[in-house]
Amino acid sequence: MKKIAVLGYGVVGSGVVELFYRNQKKIEINTGEQLEIGYILDLREFPGDPYADRVVHDIQVILDDPEVGYVAECMGGVNPAFEFVKRCLESGKSVATSNKQLVAEKGDILLETAKQHGVNFFFEASVGGAIPIIRPLHTCLAANDISSVAGILNGTTNFILEKMFCDNMGFADALELAQKLGYAEKDPSADVDGGDACRKICILSSLVFGKHVYPDQVYTKGIRDITLEDVQLAQKFGGAVKLIGAVKRLDDGKILPTVMPMVVMNESLLSHVNGVFNAVMVWGDGIDKTMFYGRGAGKLPTASAVLGDIIDEVKQTGTVLSQSWEPAEEGVDFVAPIDAFSAPRCYRTSPCGKGVFAKIAAEVGVELLGSAENGCMISVCDQKTAEAYKQKLAQEGVTILSRIPVLED
Amino acid sequence: MKKIAVLGYGVVGSGVVELFYRNQKKIEINTGEQLEIGYILDLREFPGDPYADRVVHDIQVILDDPEVGYVAECMGGVNPAFEFVKRCLESGKSVATSNKQLVAEKGDILLETAKQHGVNFFFEASVGGAIPIIRPLHTCLAANDISSVAGILNGTTNFILEKMFCDNMGFADALELAQKLGYAEKDPSADVDGGDACRKICILSSLVFGKHVYPDQVYTKGIRDITLEDVQLAQKFGGAVKLIGAVKRLDDGKILPTVMPMVVMNESLLSHVNGVFNAVMVWGDGIDKTMFYGRGAGKLPTASAVLGDIIDEVKQTGTVLSQSWEPAEEGVDFVAPIDAFSAPRCYRTSPCGKGVFAKIAAEVGVELLGSAENGCMISVCDQKTAEAYKQKLAQEGVTILSRIPVLED
Repeated sequence: MKKIAVLGYGVVGSGVVELFYRNQKKIEINTGEQLEIGYILDLREFPGDPYADRVVHDIQVILDDPEVGYVAECMGGVNPAFEFVKRCLESGKSVATSNKQLVAEKGDILLETAKQHGVNFFFEASVGGAIPIIRPLHTCLAANDISSVAGILNGTTNFILEKMFCDNMGFADALELAQKLGYAEKDPSADVDGGDACRKICILSSLVFGKHVYPDQVYTKGIRDITLEDVQLAQKFGGAVKLIGAVKRLDDGKILPTVMPMVVMNESLLSHVNGVFNAVMVWGDGIDKTMFYGRGAGKLPTASAVLGDIIDEVKQTGTVLSQSWEPAEEGVDFVAPIDAFSAPRCYRTSPCGKGVFAKIAAEVGVELLGSAENGCMISVCDQKTAEAYKQKLAQEGVTILSRIPVLED
Repeated sequence: MKKIAVLGYGVVGSGVVELFYRNQKKIEINTGEQLEIGYILDLREFPGDPYADRVVHDIQVILDDPEVGYVAECMGGVNPAFEFVKRCLESGKSVATSNKQLVAEKGDILLETAKQHGVNFFFEASVGGAIPIIRPLHTCLAANDISSVAGILNGTTNFILEKMFCDNMGFADALELAQKLGYAEKDPSADVDGGDACRKICILSSLVFGKHVYPDQVYTKGIRDITLEDVQLAQKFGGAVKLIGAVKRLDDGKILPTVMPMVVMNESLLSHVNGVFNAVMVWGDGIDKTMFYGRGAGKLPTASAVLGDIIDEVKQTGTVLSQSWEPAEEGVDFVAPIDAFSAPRCYRTSPCGKGVFAKIAAEVGVELLGSAENGCMISVCDQKTAEAYKQKLAQEGVTILSRIPVLED
């Protein structure tokens, strides 16, 4: 019999305990091992809770028990989660976490610690909640040279953008509704300003391209400035505005991770991902493209991913080296600057004759993919060309009200 | 150094060799093992092929070489694939296959053989081509009680149905186009009559519910009888007709696997899966639902899945028991008869007053979800109620021209 310790008895932690006991028999058959929730670490007491007898307040109790083989970290934040996880790994216990901040900021250190102690540090739940994405990337897709990843990594903003798209709500009203339904926090900045999606694209970038990418290396723009008019213009051109976390390998071998609102054309399955759901599209030389979709958050969906990791950890006989990455190299520019960004673009402008868009497109050498009275869409171009296009529009007396890149499929 | 043997140097087999050499370094880093394509088994010679020197005609050469640790079976069909794979497993070599017929008909025997010899028999490529689905089901989703699975498992029929939906083509014209583009065989029956999807739902049913399900146990109906009018009626009700392979656990614990055209409502992401792409939706008590999408066939996509399996086999130290199932028990009805089927239904009829549909719905106790001059959609009901509805329509002088169940989300 092996014990699992759960760190943090909040929404996710209690989900882990609930789902474990609901499917304990199935989990034991899958792993071939008898398992038990041995401890629940939390500062609070939980009188009346059916598992109140497992609650402890000191991590040392867990560290000292050799029967604890697996730890589910569901506290969130870096402190004290980092210290606790590190000490668990050093004590020979494998850890599974749902904590995206911890992985995005300290993943390289914790992966190295796990390796040194022959255990595993898994984090399937940290990106896309219930969606299997981390494990498929380094197992099922391992024969591919993956060139890019793009996803809807934040359910709250996806809900807001859908309300704008489908119900013609303004941003403020859609946000208020999301808050009312419990999808958005009272302070929604982590979601709407892109910070949450940024951490997730850090994790995906690190895993796919092999070196740690930190949140401050990612160009991050949220959806606060997206207006109903932007969404409607995208719709007119056959697309939807989505907050996209993406990373691409450039021709020079550097990678460019970004978080920004993008127009996703209807031909891409990503544009049809609605509500609080998440989805991640992956492009590789063998698969062409493949997409993973599901609930990006929530008690049981997140618990499903944490427990899936624990189950896999039980079955492993050593550290799974393919699920890891190297620290970022000091002084090496692995991450390209945003100047290297290129994409098709959607501009919303002051009213303007259609001929103007076409004329300038020809002048700067891009294709006009679509045009309307109040905006246009041009084919893929680099930042310099986009700037030239913008300046020429200004010279024609056209005001640019917004510009949103278009996701290439 | 370990050798990989490839059985069958057709489309998939040559894709395995091509993708392996393209990404050999990456694969060796992932596995931590030096690997080489040691043999290619085929009846033919391949003069001028860069790997012509690996071609052998006798399986015994491969069986006798102790350096061959892994075998990619890409021959298709049951004979001689079954015998060859069995002997490879018995010789202590792990096998990865893209052969759905082999897995659907002989999976239980080959899994048992692999277990007896401490090796693995993997088959990610046999369902959904490039799409990671087999491994996520028994790893990432292992904490879930999975209740049902439904997918677009055949790209050819999905292409045909899309052409009917988007371009108003009749079935015959759409099939002809699919044949012209190389998506459909000259004899298209395996695709359009559902046999291909049937094998895949057998494999998914066996893996998810733990006992072998054979093709002849699956109620299978293809898309040959689907008319443009059916597709247009579904469209009117806010859905699309898709060929769906599905399996569900019923209240009595039995399972009901089916292959049939179904109406998929636009709210489901499955309805937006177009072209030759495949997608599999999975419902479980932790995840709610999650979907996997990608190319269901093709040289490199299928090779990607076969090589992903080989890479995983290299990393395993023994048989992965969670990726297996038991033989079907003699005399036990694990698979329910089609009489147990229940779903909402879409009927296309001779012209009929809308009041008639509503009146009869009230009489048999179902809800009228939608009605048009030439058809209606009613809420979930069992086969008996559906039959009653049909008979009452007939009594009113209404002719039923087609009936298509609706997929519940």
